[in-house]
Amino acid sequence: MDRFFEEAAEFLRNCEDALIITHQSPDGDTIGSAYALKEALYLMGKRAKVICQEEFPERFHFITETDEHKCEDFEEKCVIAVDVADTALMGDDVEKKYSKKVDLCIDHHETNKEYAERTLVIPEAAAACEVLFKLFEQMELKLNTRIATCLYTGIVTDTGCFRFSNAGIDAHVIAAVLIAYGIDFPWINRHLFDVKTKKRIELESYLSQNIEYLYDDRVAVISVTKDIQERFSMTSDDFDGITPLATKVEAVQIGILIKQKEENKFKISMRATGNINVGKICATMGGGGHAKAAGCTIFGTFEEVKEKLIKTAGEYL
Amino acid sequence: MDRFFEEAAEFLRNCEDALIITHQSPDGDTIGSAYALKEALYLMGKRAKVICQEEFPERFHFITETDEHKCEDFEEKCVIAVDVADTALMGDDVEKKYSKKVDLCIDHHETNKEYAERTLVIPEAAAACEVLFKLFEQMELKLNTRIATCLYTGIVTDTGCFRFSNAGIDAHVIAAVLIAYGIDFPWINRHLFDVKTKKRIELESYLSQNIEYLYDDRVAVISVTKDIQERFSMTSDDFDGITPLATKVEAVQIGILIKQKEENKFKISMRATGNINVGKICATMGGGGHAKAAGCTIFGTFEEVKEKLIKTAGEYL
Repeated sequence: MDRFFEEAAEFLRNCEDALIITHQSPDGDTIGSAYALKEALYLMGKRAKVICQEEFPERFHFITETDEHKCEDFEEKCVIAVDVADTALMGDDVEKKYSKKVDLCIDHHETNKEYAERTLVIPEAAAACEVLFKLFEQMELKLNTRIATCLYTGIVTDTGCFRFSNAGIDAHVIAAVLIAYGIDFPWINRHLFDVKTKKRIELESYLSQNIEYLYDDRVAVISVTKDIQERFSMTSDDFDGITPLATKVEAVQIGILIKQKEENKFKISMRATGNINVGKICATMGGGGHAKAAGCTIFGTFEEVKEKLIKTAGEYL
Repeated sequence: MDRFFEEAAEFLRNCEDALIITHQSPDGDTIGSAYALKEALYLMGKRAKVICQEEFPERFHFITETDEHKCEDFEEKCVIAVDVADTALMGDDVEKKYSKKVDLCIDHHETNKEYAERTLVIPEAAAACEVLFKLFEQMELKLNTRIATCLYTGIVTDTGCFRFSNAGIDAHVIAAVLIAYGIDFPWINRHLFDVKTKKRIELESYLSQNIEYLYDDRVAVISVTKDIQERFSMTSDDFDGITPLATKVEAVQIGILIKQKEENKFKISMRATGNINVGKICATMGGGGHAKAAGCTIFGTFEEVKEKLIKTAGEYL
């Protein structure tokens, strides 16, 4: 067994009363990892509780609200972070309280800052849940349907349901093993990837019909001004997953979402396909982010902001 | 080895100059099966050609237009049908010429009519491509990247990229094996599931905004009458993937697409979520298919057809 696996396994075998930390803007992988680990610790006769800076989104309540181990009135004796590459991602309150106290971090981000006492990170893993699966396997821990459900959820979340390049051999082999535990994967997938509210369908249809394409379709812009936000009674949740609508057309290299915050203040999100680095583009406008997903805030009238964005994007094509 | 596998293997080993028949409205599974089999026969030192009543959709040209075995000026000595449950699905011309001459049928539809001299059908298989994979495996045929690409395409097509209930243990294990052949699965998945033309985005937006919901949203109907087909210059390709748009809202149990073929002739496609068996529903109207995806043809005015469908669907809720 790999030294890091052995170290993590040893820690779990000996730990007691664990606090499990997820990252802010919690997704299926951090939630799936946390609740799979919590369940595993209970199977090992221990206690654990999961915390998050923010509330868990409703779409993951099938995991977070079905947990049977509710007796969480204990003072933690150790701290484990899952899918948290950097303490800054814990959110302010959690970071302040726990950033220097993490005993074990289980992760798959190659950018992991190694802030924990022990770090088990496999950058080739599709998801932190894949790392956990391998850890449980090497510990010869017998899984159950709940753990399998949690781990499967993390893997499908991070691979876009096996669409992306990280959905390699291991992700499929692990999925096959998890499915053998009798998990309701068709429901999970429909719930996470297919189901939409009527309001969402209306919104996506409207926005999709009003995308502006520029530079031979290499740049696509979705504008969500205040009047559109009011028309569809949009809340901040409704902006989740909107920017990718701009990158559906094959030729698009830069997808841009212009979200009006105030009269002359606009929040910008960008997504790149291919080799464009939108992190760099946003950095020139005072923002930042990853190569494939980034953002910035721009002040001015809607027309000015849009013109500036289109001009700047054009320079990077 | 199962008797039916042995029979099919024996036939392939001894066959010569094969004609491979796909079903009309060709999808990734029938196309993937046909070209995987064609390539396999060439690897075995034989000749084969693929036919279809209709042109292959552009989205599958990455398979159909990259075939290197173009020397197809031979008279077939045997006929193999793949993913064709019923000769009626071959399309009129092909059915007329070949329906009584099929030597081997390789399929995964439990409704297979066993019209061929030999039938290898595995109803539990996610795709005909899964059946072919198992056949090749039992024949100990060494695959190549092209065959793996074809088989993966069939499996992702029929499982909705591993979303549906048929994406079970075998589908994932086979995907893992196929990925090991170095196929470009991230490209295949973006190409098949993410990328859309502007025309397609317009069409989906329009249809999504005009879905009729009935029985407390448990039934959803998309109607594509001739005037809509003309408005969006729709070809038969454009109907691919339309029916699932009807099942996006969580409560929907039966999604129905009504496609006008002629003034008083309508082709119906149904998709089920949950436990409804739309194969049975379509069978009562002279059609058939799988539990989760089925179809039929109904004659009458648009209003009559819609009313009949809504009434019949209501009886199965």
